[in-house]
Amino acid sequence: MRPGTTMATTGHLTSASKRMSFVRSAGVVQHRMGMVSQRMHQRMSSSCSSRGRSTAVVTYASASGEQKTIVIGLAADSGCGKSTFMRRVTQLFGGDPEPPKGGNPDSNTLISDNTTVICLDDYHCLDRYGRKDKGVTALAPEAQDFDLMYEQIKAIKEGKSVEKPIYNHVTGLLDPPETIVPPKILIVEGLHPFFDERVNELIDFSIYLDISDEVKFAWKIQRDMAERGHSLESIQASIESRKPDFDAYIDPQKAKADVIVQVLPTQLIPDDEEKKVLRVKMIQKEDVECFDPTYLFDEGSTVSWIPCGRKLTCSFPGIKFFYGPDTFYGENVSVLEMDGQFDKLEELIYVESHLSNTSAKFYGEITQQMLKNTAFPGSNNGTGLFQTLIGLKVREVYEKMTSKTVESVSA
Amino acid sequence: MRPGTTMATTGHLTSASKRMSFVRSAGVVQHRMGMVSQRMHQRMSSSCSSRGRSTAVVTYASASGEQKTIVIGLAADSGCGKSTFMRRVTQLFGGDPEPPKGGNPDSNTLISDNTTVICLDDYHCLDRYGRKDKGVTALAPEAQDFDLMYEQIKAIKEGKSVEKPIYNHVTGLLDPPETIVPPKILIVEGLHPFFDERVNELIDFSIYLDISDEVKFAWKIQRDMAERGHSLESIQASIESRKPDFDAYIDPQKAKADVIVQVLPTQLIPDDEEKKVLRVKMIQKEDVECFDPTYLFDEGSTVSWIPCGRKLTCSFPGIKFFYGPDTFYGENVSVLEMDGQFDKLEELIYVESHLSNTSAKFYGEITQQMLKNTAFPGSNNGTGLFQTLIGLKVREVYEKMTSKTVESVSA
Repeated sequence: MRPGTTMATTGHLTSASKRMSFVRSAGVVQHRMGMVSQRMHQRMSSSCSSRGRSTAVVTYASASGEQKTIVIGLAADSGCGKSTFMRRVTQLFGGDPEPPKGGNPDSNTLISDNTTVICLDDYHCLDRYGRKDKGVTALAPEAQDFDLMYEQIKAIKEGKSVEKPIYNHVTGLLDPPETIVPPKILIVEGLHPFFDERVNELIDFSIYLDISDEVKFAWKIQRDMAERGHSLESIQASIESRKPDFDAYIDPQKAKADVIVQVLPTQLIPDDEEKKVLRVKMIQKEDVECFDPTYLFDEGSTVSWIPCGRKLTCSFPGIKFFYGPDTFYGENVSVLEMDGQFDKLEELIYVESHLSNTSAKFYGEITQQMLKNTAFPGSNNGTGLFQTLIGLKVREVYEKMTSKTVESVSA
Repeated sequence: MRPGTTMATTGHLTSASKRMSFVRSAGVVQHRMGMVSQRMHQRMSSSCSSRGRSTAVVTYASASGEQKTIVIGLAADSGCGKSTFMRRVTQLFGGDPEPPKGGNPDSNTLISDNTTVICLDDYHCLDRYGRKDKGVTALAPEAQDFDLMYEQIKAIKEGKSVEKPIYNHVTGLLDPPETIVPPKILIVEGLHPFFDERVNELIDFSIYLDISDEVKFAWKIQRDMAERGHSLESIQASIESRKPDFDAYIDPQKAKADVIVQVLPTQLIPDDEEKKVLRVKMIQKEDVECFDPTYLFDEGSTVSWIPCGRKLTCSFPGIKFFYGPDTFYGENVSVLEMDGQFDKLEELIYVESHLSNTSAKFYGEITQQMLKNTAFPGSNNGTGLFQTLIGLKVREVYEKMTSKTVESVSA
C-alpha cells in the first residue's frame, strides 16, 4: 500500500487504529490529515502504515471489524529456493502449506491456516506457445497480465474472492481458474511482483531473493545436470538466453524491495570452485515503518565477527558475520551478512544471543525454528538463517498492521 | 611471586585465606599440598595467588593480619609516557603521587596514599662516568645491581623498610640513599623489572609498555628536537646507539609480562608520516590468576568494530577497534586494539558500554577516570584508555590478593 492517494481513490481504507479514537473512518482520516502532522499521527498510534510511506496511520480492519488481507511480495527467479523460503515464512503463522483441496493438481497455490501463497506465473497472458509465437521469454512484461494481477490482488485486499487463472508448468498452458478466498496473509511470489507500480503499491512488505550469477549457475548445474540429465552447454545456453530479459525486467525490482537476500560465493575460500559454501547478505531498508532491521552487537556500527571457536563449532572454512550501514540504490540500508556454515545447528543459540531487533517472541525462537527445519535446504547457512529472520519480520509486520497477535508456534 | 619453591625457601608465606579455615599457616599449607589438588584449592578460596603459577592459594596477610606489599612491575623505555601511566594507576588508590617530603629533590620516587613508585634506575651500579669507562650503556645488565634490587624488593614485601640508593638523572651520579617504607602497593618501573628472574618472581602483576620504533622516533623528534633543540642526526644517532642493547636486554622482557601495551602507527591513514594518530594494542595474557582480560562484545570471538557515527563523533580518520584471541611468545593472549582518536571524550561511555570484564566498580568509571585526566597525554586515544583499563586491573589484582576493598575514587 502506498500514500494516501491510493488509499483515498481505491476507497478500501476503512478504519483507523482503535487506539486513535478520534480517527474512526476513512472519511475522517482525510478530513483530519491537514490538522495533524504525519509524525504526530505516528506517535499517537502504536500501529503503523504499510512500507513507511503512507500519509495516514491505519490498521487493516474493515468498518465491521473484519480483518483485511496483508500482502507480502517475494520476487525471485525460478529454482532459487522460493518454496523453501515460503515454507519458513508461512510456518510461523501455523499449519502446513498445501495445494487447494480437490482442485487442479497442477495448481501453483499453497494454502495453510492463515496464509495463501500465489504464484505470479498464473498471470501469464501468453502460454508457452504464445511466447514462442511472439518470440518473447516468460520474463518479458508482454507475457504478463498486469491488469488482472492488479485487479485481483486489489480485490483480495478488499475482502473479495477472485477467480485466478492457473498457469500449468507441466503443459505450459493456461488451465481453468481456481477460487482464491481472501486469507489473513497473501504472499505473491514470482518474477514480477514489484514491476507494475499499481501492483507494487498493494504490497505491504516486499522481499527480493537475489542469487548471484555464479551461485545460480552452480545450482542449475547441480539440479539440471545431475538430476535431470541436461548437458552443461544446454544449461549455459538456457541461462544466457534468459539473462538479457532478467537484467532488464527482474533485477531492477530489487531497488523497490524492503529487504533483499543476496546469495554470493564465499569469501572464506580463495577461488572457491564448488560454490557450496555461501556468503549471504540480508540488505534491510531503513525508515520502513513496521520494520526494524535486525542488527549485530550494536545498532549503526560496522562490525565484523568471527564467533568464538569455543562457543560455536566450525570446521573449515569457518564462519564470519558482518553488520553495518550502507546505501543500496540510493537508500539507507543495514546489511547483515553471514559467510560460511554451521556445523551444529543447536549452537545457533549463541549467534542468536548477539542479534537484536530480531522480532522473535522469545530468546531462542530463531534457533527453535531453524532446528525444526533442519531438512530444508540452506538450514546450515545464511539463507536459512535470514529466511527465518525475514519470516519473523513478516509476522511482526502483520501484527503491527493489524494490531493482532500471532501465537508463536512451538516446535 | 612464583611457584611454591620460592615461597617455601624464602619463608615469607605466612597465612592462607581466612576462608580456607583448614589452612592456617605456611607449615600447614605445605603439609596439606599433597592432599588437595591445586584446582580444588583454587575453588575453595575466593582469592587468588599471584600471576597464576603459584601452587598454594594464599592472600598477602601476615600472621598478625598486617597487610603485605603487592608489587607491580612496569617495564618501559625512558620518554615513553611511564609517568603518565603511573599517574593513571596510582590515582585509583587515592592521593596524588609526590616525591618524598623533605628528601633529595632529585629523588625518582613518587609516594601517594597507598602506593609508592620506585624507579629501577636507582639500582644502577655504574654511574654515567662508570658506564663511559667500561663502555656500557645504561641498558646493559652490567650497569644494574640486581642483587640489591632483589634484596630490597624482597625486604619491602616482607614488611621491612630499606635504604634505597638514588640515581641522580641530572648529575648522572649515585646520591645518598632514601628510606622506602613498605607501602600497600609498590610499583617498580624502569628498564629491567623482569630481567633478573629473582626480581621477576617477586612481582605480582607485570606490565610492559612497548612503543614501536617508528612512534618512539617520532616522539623523540618531537621532544628532543622541538623542545630541547637537538638535531635530527643526533636523535637518530642516540636511538641507534641504544638499539642493540635495547633489543638484547629490554625488549625480550615483554615475553614475561602479564599485559603488554603496544603503541603503533595508525593503519587508518595510508603511509601516515605524522605518527600523531596511534594504533594501540593491549595484549592480555590468558590464564593469569586474579586477572581476567577485558573483552569487546563477546569473549573469545574475533571482532572488528567501527563504532556507530551517530553515537560517537569521530572526524578523519575515524576510530576502529579490534578484539580477538592470539598467541604471544607462545602463550595464549586476548588482544584489544584501538586505532584512531576520540573527538569527544564524554562519548567514551558508549565505548565503555560495549567492553566487558573491565574491573570497573560501576558503569561509567572508565569514562569518569578518562574525563578526570583529559590533560594527560594520550587521553584521546588508546594509550589513555588502556592505561586506565590496566589501572583498574591493578586495583582488582590488589583486591583479590589481599581480600581488601579499594574505595572507588570519585571525580
